[in-house]
Amino acid sequence: MEVVKVLHMNGGKGDTSYANNSLVQQKVISMTKPITEDAITQLYCSTLPKSLVIADLGCSSGPNTLFVVSDLIKVVNQLRQKLRHQSPEYQVFLNDLPGNDFNTIFKSLPSFQKKMSSQLGAGAGPCFFAGVPGSFYGRLFQSKTLHFVHSSYSLQWLSKVPEQLESNKGNIYMARTSPPSVLRAYHAQFQQDFSMFLKCRAEELVLSGRMVLTLLGRRSEDPSSKECCYIWELLALVLNEMVSEGFIDEEKMDSFNIPQYTPSPSEVKSEVLKEGSFSIACLEVSEVNWNIYSNDGGYNVAQCMRAVAEPLLVSHFGEAIIEEVFSRYREILSDRISKENTRFVNVIVSLIKKE
Amino acid sequence: MEVVKVLHMNGGKGDTSYANNSLVQQKVISMTKPITEDAITQLYCSTLPKSLVIADLGCSSGPNTLFVVSDLIKVVNQLRQKLRHQSPEYQVFLNDLPGNDFNTIFKSLPSFQKKMSSQLGAGAGPCFFAGVPGSFYGRLFQSKTLHFVHSSYSLQWLSKVPEQLESNKGNIYMARTSPPSVLRAYHAQFQQDFSMFLKCRAEELVLSGRMVLTLLGRRSEDPSSKECCYIWELLALVLNEMVSEGFIDEEKMDSFNIPQYTPSPSEVKSEVLKEGSFSIACLEVSEVNWNIYSNDGGYNVAQCMRAVAEPLLVSHFGEAIIEEVFSRYREILSDRISKENTRFVNVIVSLIKKE
Repeated sequence: MEVVKVLHMNGGKGDTSYANNSLVQQKVISMTKPITEDAITQLYCSTLPKSLVIADLGCSSGPNTLFVVSDLIKVVNQLRQKLRHQSPEYQVFLNDLPGNDFNTIFKSLPSFQKKMSSQLGAGAGPCFFAGVPGSFYGRLFQSKTLHFVHSSYSLQWLSKVPEQLESNKGNIYMARTSPPSVLRAYHAQFQQDFSMFLKCRAEELVLSGRMVLTLLGRRSEDPSSKECCYIWELLALVLNEMVSEGFIDEEKMDSFNIPQYTPSPSEVKSEVLKEGSFSIACLEVSEVNWNIYSNDGGYNVAQCMRAVAEPLLVSHFGEAIIEEVFSRYREILSDRISKENTRFVNVIVSLIKKE
Repeated sequence: MEVVKVLHMNGGKGDTSYANNSLVQQKVISMTKPITEDAITQLYCSTLPKSLVIADLGCSSGPNTLFVVSDLIKVVNQLRQKLRHQSPEYQVFLNDLPGNDFNTIFKSLPSFQKKMSSQLGAGAGPCFFAGVPGSFYGRLFQSKTLHFVHSSYSLQWLSKVPEQLESNKGNIYMARTSPPSVLRAYHAQFQQDFSMFLKCRAEELVLSGRMVLTLLGRRSEDPSSKECCYIWELLALVLNEMVSEGFIDEEKMDSFNIPQYTPSPSEVKSEVLKEGSFSIACLEVSEVNWNIYSNDGGYNVAQCMRAVAEPLLVSHFGEAIIEEVFSRYREILSDRISKENTRFVNVIVSLIKKE
């Protein structure tokens, strides 16, 4: 459900409200909190930097944008008090694609900084914020300057729709009926993107620097597994229905594919080992129910999926069909949620930069 | 006329077009170009940094935002080719108040970076951009990380309207009829702000780091000199006229003052010496004519002044009077330009961070 966070990762319209996702985001953040806190604790104690540089990649611009960062800083502040060290300065880089609404983040910073500084109390170092527009599948920061990289619900988005998906007709993502060549094309694009991500961050992180990455993923080794593909299959169902009723052009439908890959833990592990710059401190899987909100009949999961899918659908099919698509999609989701125990799977990996 | 650049420094509305100022901005930039290029050349040759960090303070968001920065990088690129050195990486920080339109800058970056990289040619290091929201009268960057600071037409803006201007009735800035206490209050606020600026930058710059600052200023030692105050006196004339006609409340008028100080070169020099962290490489004065555009009857200077003054007027007087104010102001400006040789004075100072 939290894929809503990456709306902007796809050049989204930027005016969709994130407000109703804050509970979900907070749930995911609280699930990964022990891993994140372990990582920053080990980092701080092993490097004791005078200036601690944190980057949040795919930060979006909602109520949770600054949530993780403030938590990280609080942990370090407690540590340095316990160890009776002078506080480091904090430099926070907030990254997302150039289309992200940085203005809204920036306008919220003065009050956030004021609140932070009163929570941290006397003796805490200054905290500097900067926005960094650009794709994290390329270099974003100076060499050897980052201490800690965090990214949540962004890395499942590919840099582009894989090539050679012509044979994926009737589907919009990997599906049970996708031919093997389609699954291979998706996996190859993920491998290329994720290893490029690791390579870029390896250049930017200091020795012993840490990364905690949370991706939407799956437990199964089958990339067309229901746990990651079902939610898109239901959207494909709606689109195919509208093709058969003449609302959508069949060729348009056939050429539409979602630029996402939901990897298994072992696929993540394999790319990390192959790239070679990082050792794995921790690799975990967790789950979030589709209907995290009390019985709302699927309204919220539909809203969340809309925030993610709408920009993709609009840029491919135009505005006209959108209301009808999501009205039907909402109905299907509501039906399935009432009958099945549907969940999203999160893959969380904590990495350490090697020599 | 270029004071338009600081629209956002005052929480301006952010949607005023900067397009028609690009000629003026470019003129000022080209006037300071020899000084800026000297400074970056000396910096590069004396420190040969692997990573060169440049900050533009009060960057605004118009067509000239990236102009100076790209020029600085081109100079360094030519130097490193001549010296047969490997290229540094470039980190550019663009700063302005949190209300600045960073989204527009960020959206223009991909095409700017593409163009830059083709102009620099093979072998040039990567160039990373970040937006830094906040007042430059406080700390903005990590200690000892900046190599070069540039600021153009921003530092004449004070952090706030000076206190105790009650006796400045009928005026909106320092004027020939302002009592000495008003001139002292303005000067004291400038001293406090400018020395705080120097202190913060001194902490952020590396040893031998450089700053080139261009301020709207004056030649005379008289702070109410016509060369810097006349343009505001003409606006006060309009406002007083509208008070006497009942359009504006007299008390409202009496409590309105512009948060600006246009210093003389010796005042700038005196603050630099007093603060003590910088030596002065160069201190110059230059001038720009009000009617830099061919005879347009004052239309452009009025437009520029409107971009600067409108947000200040609106927040104090409300929207209702604005059209009438600027219609009258345009008329007066047009009349004076045709009769007098009116100019803006620029103070340019190039500084070197000492031990």
